[in-house]
Formats: sequence, C-alpha cells, structure tokens
Amino acid sequence: MSSDSDHQCPVDGSVDQQEMIPSKKNAVLVDGVVLNGPTTDAKAGEKFVEEACRLIMEEVVLKATDVNEKVCEWRPPEQLKQLLDLEMRDSGEPPHRLLELCRDVIRYSVKTNHPRFFNQLYAGLDYYSLVARFMTEALNPSVYTYEVSPVFLLVEEAVLKKMIEFIGWKEGDGIFNPGGSVSNMYAMNLARYKYCPDIKEKGLSGSPRLILFTSAECHYSMKKAASFLGIGTENVCFVETDGRGKMIPEELEKQVWQARKEGAAPFLVCATSGTTVLGAFDPLDEIADICERHGLWLHVDASWGGSALMSRKHRKLLHGIHRADSVAWNPHKMLMAGIQCCALLVKDKSDLLKKCYCAKASYLFQQDKFYDVSYDTGDKSIQCSRRPDAFKFWMTWKALGTSGLEERVNRALALSRYLVDEIKKREGFKLLLEPEYANICFWYIPPSLREMEEGPEFWAKLNLVAPAIKERMMKKGSLMLGYQPHRGKVNFFRQVVISPQVSREDMDFLLDEIDLLARYIDDHNRIRSTSNEENYQNGH
Amino acid sequence: MSSDSDHQCPVDGSVDQQEMIPSKKNAVLVDGVVLNGPTTDAKAGEKFVEEACRLIMEEVVLKATDVNEKVCEWRPPEQLKQLLDLEMRDSGEPPHRLLELCRDVIRYSVKTNHPRFFNQLYAGLDYYSLVARFMTEALNPSVYTYEVSPVFLLVEEAVLKKMIEFIGWKEGDGIFNPGGSVSNMYAMNLARYKYCPDIKEKGLSGSPRLILFTSAECHYSMKKAASFLGIGTENVCFVETDGRGKMIPEELEKQVWQARKEGAAPFLVCATSGTTVLGAFDPLDEIADICERHGLWLHVDASWGGSALMSRKHRKLLHGIHRADSVAWNPHKMLMAGIQCCALLVKDKSDLLKKCYCAKASYLFQQDKFYDVSYDTGDKSIQCSRRPDAFKFWMTWKALGTSGLEERVNRALALSRYLVDEIKKREGFKLLLEPEYANICFWYIPPSLREMEEGPEFWAKLNLVAPAIKERMMKKGSLMLGYQPHRGKVNFFRQVVISPQVSREDMDFLLDEIDLLARYIDDHNRIRSTSNEENYQNGH
Repeated sequence: MSSDSDHQCPVDGSVDQQEMIPSKKNAVLVDGVVLNGPTTDAKAGEKFVEEACRLIMEEVVLKATDVNEKVCEWRPPEQLKQLLDLEMRDSGEPPHRLLELCRDVIRYSVKTNHPRFFNQLYAGLDYYSLVARFMTEALNPSVYTYEVSPVFLLVEEAVLKKMIEFIGWKEGDGIFNPGGSVSNMYAMNLARYKYCPDIKEKGLSGSPRLILFTSAECHYSMKKAASFLGIGTENVCFVETDGRGKMIPEELEKQVWQARKEGAAPFLVCATSGTTVLGAFDPLDEIADICERHGLWLHVDASWGGSALMSRKHRKLLHGIHRADSVAWNPHKMLMAGIQCCALLVKDKSDLLKKCYCAKASYLFQQDKFYDVSYDTGDKSIQCSRRPDAFKFWMTWKALGTSGLEERVNRALALSRYLVDEIKKREGFKLLLEPEYANICFWYIPPSLREMEEGPEFWAKLNLVAPAIKERMMKKGSLMLGYQPHRGKVNFFRQVVISPQVSREDMDFLLDEIDLLARYIDDHNRIRSTSNEENYQNGH
Repeated sequence: MSSDSDHQCPVDGSVDQQEMIPSKKNAVLVDGVVLNGPTTDAKAGEKFVEEACRLIMEEVVLKATDVNEKVCEWRPPEQLKQLLDLEMRDSGEPPHRLLELCRDVIRYSVKTNHPRFFNQLYAGLDYYSLVARFMTEALNPSVYTYEVSPVFLLVEEAVLKKMIEFIGWKEGDGIFNPGGSVSNMYAMNLARYKYCPDIKEKGLSGSPRLILFTSAECHYSMKKAASFLGIGTENVCFVETDGRGKMIPEELEKQVWQARKEGAAPFLVCATSGTTVLGAFDPLDEIADICERHGLWLHVDASWGGSALMSRKHRKLLHGIHRADSVAWNPHKMLMAGIQCCALLVKDKSDLLKKCYCAKASYLFQQDKFYDVSYDTGDKSIQCSRRPDAFKFWMTWKALGTSGLEERVNRALALSRYLVDEIKKREGFKLLLEPEYANICFWYIPPSLREMEEGPEFWAKLNLVAPAIKERMMKKGSLMLGYQPHRGKVNFFRQVVISPQVSREDMDFLLDEIDLLARYIDDHNRIRSTSNEENYQNGH
C-alpha cells in the first residue's frame, strides 16, 4: 500500500476529484482521495433520519394498538422477493427511494407489537424499552470497558443486582447475553468449570464422560449447548415429566444413580421454570435437594417463567429458586424489554464467571488504567463487543416501577385464566391440560370431527386442523398464534398471553376467529380433502 | 393458580379497581385484575416516544458531526453512580423525569459517533444503518422462521449471497451472529463437525486430542472459543509471526507436523485478515496450500479486515480468501453497520451449517407448514431468538451502493496513510511498524525522554506515557484512542481510522493534541514522578 501512495498537496486532480473537494485551501490528496473535511453530507443524512423516524412513528408505533390493522400481510417467499427490491447494486438509491423501501419493509413485516400477535413467547410494545432501544442504537455502545460504556456498565450492574434480589440471593454475579440459549450455554460451561477447572486449558479429551440432566420438556437449547460445548447430545439425560410437564424428582435421582453406575460423571441439573410449549414449572425444591445430595450444579432455565418472580401472587411457581447455582431469565419475554434482553445470574461471588471466561486481552483490559478496572466486566463474556441489553429493561423498570411490572405479570396470568375458562365453556375447544402459566394449549375440533370417536383416524384428521387454520389465519392476517405436535400429541394451538394491550375482547376474538376460520375451511372441504390415513398415537 | 381464581362478572371491586376500568359495560375481573380493554395508556406512551426521539435527534444525531462537542464527559464510577439515579423502585417515574434520565444517559455516555472517537475498531455514524436499527427496534422481530420474519430472512439471504460473492465463492451459506467472537466459535465447531460428525452426539470425551492453529497475533476469541467448546486453550497452537505481525507459513507447517508427531489431531487453521492490534494480514494463499496438504479446515477471521474486500484497490490484502472454508466478517466495523453486524460465511453448500447446529425443535420448525420451510433458517443457529443484523448493513449498501462502500474503505485507508506520513515528519512520534491497514501504532516520546538512550530505563518510562496521556485525554474529553502493551513492546497508541466524517484536520488535531496533553503532563512532572525502576524489555 505504501509503495503506490501518491501524497500530493495542493490538489492536482481531475474534474471529478475537484467536485469532491470542500471549499478549503491546501486540500490534501492521498491515493486519489481528498482528505479535507468530512465526505458525508450530514444535513442530508439527518433529514433522512428525521423522515424515517416520522414513518416509523406513523406506521409502526401509532398503529401498534390498532386491532383493525393486520398482524401480517402474508406473501410467500418467492412473491415477496419480487415485491421487495432486495438487490444491492453498484450505485446507491436516493433518499425518497430508501423511504419507499422502508415502507415496504414495514408493510410486509409481521407486527409483533400487534395486540393479536400471540405466536411467540414475546409480544407487544413497551414504549419505555423502545426509547431505550432507540437510544442504544443512536449511541452505538459496546459494553466491555468502563472507559467506552460507563453508563451502560453501571446500569447493567444495577439491574443484575435487582434481579439477584428477586431470585432471593444475598449476592451474586451475572451478565446479559444475546439470548436464553446462550445463557444456558454459559451455565453449562460454568458448571463444568466448577466441576473441573482444568478443562478450560486441557479440554475434554481424556476427561471422564460428563453427563447432565434436564427435563424431557426442556428448551432445545440444552441439546444445542451440549453439542456446542463438546459434551455431546447423548450425554444430555432427559428426565421424564408428569402429566403437567414437570420433571419427576424421583426419576431424576434414579438417572443420576444410573449414570454414576455406568461410570459417567454427572455435573449439572437443569430445571426449567416455564417450559416452552406447556409453560410447566419443575419442582425446584425437590430438585435442589437431589443436587445437594449429589453435589451437582443446579441451573434453572427461567428464561420464560422468571418474570413470575415479579409477582407476589405468582412467584410461588418458582419456589426454591434461591437454591439454584445459576438462573437464566429473559426480560424480553413477559416483561417486554425487546429482543434481546437475557440475563444469566450466578450465585457464586468468588468471581467464577470471570475465572471461567477470561482471556485477559491486553489491548482491551489494560491493568494500568487510571480508574478501577474491576468495572471492565467484558472479560466475563464469550463475546467481545456486546450490546447494552440491561438498559432497556432498566428503562421499563424505572418507568413502571416494580409494582407496574407486577401488574403486567398478574394481568397476563389473569387473562390466561379467563381464556382457559372460556375454552372450557365453548364447544369444539379442548384444553390439552390445565395450565400453570401463560401458555394455553388447546385443540380446536371442527364440526366435522366432533362426532367421531377419538381413535387413530380422529387424531390423524385432527393433526391437520391446526396447520390448515394457521394457513388461513396468516393469509387473512387477523391474528397469529402457534401450533405444534408435542410428545405424542397431535398438532395443537399454543396461545401465549403477554402484552398489557391485550384485553378480554382479544381473547374472545381469538376463539371466535379460530372457529370462523375453521368453519370456512371445513365448508371448503380443505381439512377433509388433505387428510390422510397415517396412524397417529392417541392424543392423550 | 386455578384454585384461587375469582372470576367475577360484572365488577364488584374496590375504588382503586374502579379507576382502572375502561368505560365499558360487562367488565370482567379475574384474580382481582380487570380484563376489559388495554391497560396501557397508549397516548401517553406515544407522546413519550415522540419527545424522546426529539431528544435523541438533538443530543445524539445532530451533534455527532460536531468536533466542538466532547467525546466523553468523564466521571469515575463512584461519582457517576451518584450522578445517575440508577435505583429501580416500587413506583415508576413520570415521563418528564424519564426524559431527564435519558438526557443524563446521553450526557455521560461516550460519543462513539464523534469524529474524534478512535478508541475501538468501530466508530462514526451511518445515517442509513441507523434508520434500519430504529426500524428493527420498532418492529422487534426475531429471525428464526419465515412466518415471523419474512422480510428480514430474505434480506439476510440477499446480504449473505452478496458477501459470498465478494469473498469470491460461487456459492455458500452463512449466518449473522452476535459478534465476531461468536462467528469464530461457529467456525471452530463447524470444522470439528466436518472432522468428526460423531462429536455432536458423543462429545469429546474419548476422542483424540483435537488441536488448532492460529497466529500469535490472533484475536483473543480463539482462546475463548477453544475453552468454551471443550477443546481447551492448551490445544490452541500459536504460530509465530513476522515483523509485520503476519503468520509465518513455514512455522505453521512445522507445528502441524509436530502436533501429528505428538499424536494430536489437527483439524483447523485460523488465519487472520486484519489483526486487532497491528492490523496485519496473514498470507492466505500460502496458508491455504498448507491446509490443503494436511486436509485442514481453513477459517479466516476477517472480522476487521474483511471490509477491504469492498475496495478494488485494497482487496489484495486478502488475496487467497476464496480458498477459505469459512470467513468471519463484521460489517459493523469499517462499514459502520452498528453494533453488532457480524457474518459467518461458509463455502460448503451441503447444508453443513444446518446439520452441525440443528436440534429440530418441533414447536418452532414444524415441517407441515403451508410454505417452503427451507426459509426457516433458525436451526442453523446456536441462538433461538436472533436479531436481524443483516438488515442494517443492507440498508447502508442500498443507500451507498457498492461504490459508496468502496469509497469509504479507500478513504479510511488514505487517511491512515496520511497519518503515517505525518507521524514520520513529527518529532516525538515514532511508528511501531509500517501499517498495512487502518491501525496506526505509534509511541509518543515526550520531550523529557527524547535525549535518553533506548535502554531499560527509557522503555520503563515510555511505558507510563500512553496511560498518562490517556487519562488526561479522557478527563479533557477532546478525543479517544486506545493504547496497549503488545508482545514485549511497551504501551503504545493504536489509532484506528474508520468514519467518513473524519478528515485530515482530525488527523492533524490528533497529533497536536497528544503533544499538548503530554507537554502538560510533562510540565506537571506527572510522568517522571510516577515512573518506577522496573525493568522492561527493549521495546523492539
């Protein structure tokens, strides 16, 4: 590069280059590039940001509460590719064209803020976290050292401290991660480090076969974590659950003994507080007893259910959580902090997190800084650059107070309760099980199947109902909720209630609308014509 | 929960509850919670968002180009805690108080957008990616299934395709991750899976000792990855570099032979294109030859240097990159897409990424959906919820075109060239080495040390200079750049040039200001009085 640099002063360039030169004397050219003054047209950029903000406000924020808007404007992939101008070209597009693109992106995106988006374990619009998120993007921080992120590091410290308090620990440590899956990985690695610190340097080759235990209803990230961490998916021992989806403690202890007998090395039990599909809560106290007896690390994946800790009424669902060694808890779910806001909390205060994760990069974590470098917490992370996710939860907490967050949880669970009662009253709706939390799992049985005996043919036909209704629902755009088969049960709907913008009327609408969509399909013979003769297990 | 539900209709509540009830008949109470209508005051929320947007526009966006603003308003941690109202309380704060908090957060945050923020491998404000980021936050998507993120999945596909084209592959696959460190982990796991797919299920216990090779100048994430993945930091073999920080291919091959002789199992070479401190580029072609001879996966960590691929003038720095099996490339660095925007790109088209990572969660990746589920790419990821980071890069690319991105790279490197030439001209500045890229590493030698012989005392004293200047710089808030000791060399500055808002004048200012800050300290005897008699190795 140095060989072909042509450093000229003053300018002796072509006409094109002249046009780029700000009206300054002594313009400097290097490698044909004029270096005087900034090249960005800040005024034009600022105007674009202002206009786009107006668009976002009008098309997303103001419409977020309007149930008359569509939840989605469905287009199949190939058609959407035609509608959107995705191609990146040699020359840029003018601002008005970019604004059109923005409008299209909004138009064809699913409105996860919509009061009738019930498809995932997150939903709704929290105005306060949204502001924090806008600020984050404008300030563009990375949270590793105090010198670069003074405010955001202190905010993270304050939020972690408060969450630790709600878990019931006197003290602790923690870190915000890009997702509950990553938090679960952190916990698994921490438990392994605690079990045998040498693995950090030596690796697992030559070590005994490590084995961990989790419920058969756990999140799929446990398998991903075991694979990623080199433990292997076969060394994840899935413990059987009861009829409500809760881990059976006796089964756990049996499996621990069995693993020991086989010469494996148990090191971790992962309990789940709020399973993904059924919303089940494992019995933490009994599991903690077993962990204590066997010297096992207890991690609680409360990514979904952790929010119940904010409610004096519902925190009993997590009774015993203070006995955990680590907890994953995602405020981006029921507390609506925005994707992503996920904390891993650790009971240990011997700096285990840092010891386990540190690599001591001398270019970032200099020890001769002029301030207290214990505030440079980045070496606790597997990431280098990291987003200030605690900040958005902090802003919501400041805005609503603990009492406001508690109300949010209470209301979501009261609405769930209401929906359950309505489902019980209505013909054609059948609960999978009595829910503990905000996951309401149910089948819709269309009129054509109501008289049929619950045999293999019934289940085979019922298995086709939810996908058919979902298709019709997406194409109409009136609401979104998920369905899935689950452990021998044929496809059923999972309704998730979160947002305070949701009302009883939306619950009624949900049931009416499913009925309406299904009747439409039934009338058009869609379900019957696509049914097949495959055998399904009894759905119970 | 069901046992204590009190389902009443119509309402028979207290006065407080009455106040919460919207003006509707037939209000429904469950568990003491009124369920009619939304409980959020949307109008107040929208007003708050609007006012906060105005604040963000005025205090962050419009000031981003103003060199007269401070880069940071330094406060030590304990003092900043006093200044900020961090505590989360039972009751919430009113909007005007929240806006004051927002103002304080902005005030005490480091302005990474400022033209004189040179502290990290990212900087500046890109108006287009900023808009995409605002849209992301407003739409709050999670990128795993087409049904929830139709637009963002197609955008990711388009961006990956284009990045693959710039690497020089005919086809390929990829995924955006929360950080280059995570991308490097992905690559390490992929290479391991390719080497022995059984490890996914069986784990590493009982497998041969896997070993990988990377340059002694590589990013610290390689060590973190080896530790996290259960490979062990001792099985990261650091290959010696030449005087410019580039991996020496002959040393690499020697070490591969040595590892084989010791019975270890080499499976991966990680080359670096743009090292973190020196900005060095490993010789990819020669390394690729060795990988081919030994059947090793070649991963290129081009997190920092990958952006040079956009420039026809500078892409030769990565000559041979098309021979890599995987590449990490972070558009959030020189291409200014915003923290974080990091792609892992993979040459394989046999769906290796999916095979390696999938866990086939049936609640999310249903196979009986009504659309082509190959668009549900979430099972390629270790994350469950995932942000649409490709979108912000896409928006910038649409706005500037390839030619605009090329200009941005060319200008950053021309400015770097200019700074190097200025450093050479100035008394008291000493280059560490002739840079290839946008990392300009140099010592500032204060007047009091200029006559001293370059012996142990000189280096010991020089080691104190950069930290002292940095302290003064932070407290004044006039600019920010980093310093570090590095591989036997005492503390030196690393200047990183990125943003198109930066001009020649800022480069001149940088040198003038360091000189000024140092003279101030020298005058006040700060450097001499804090120097000690420790022996340092010769800095060369």
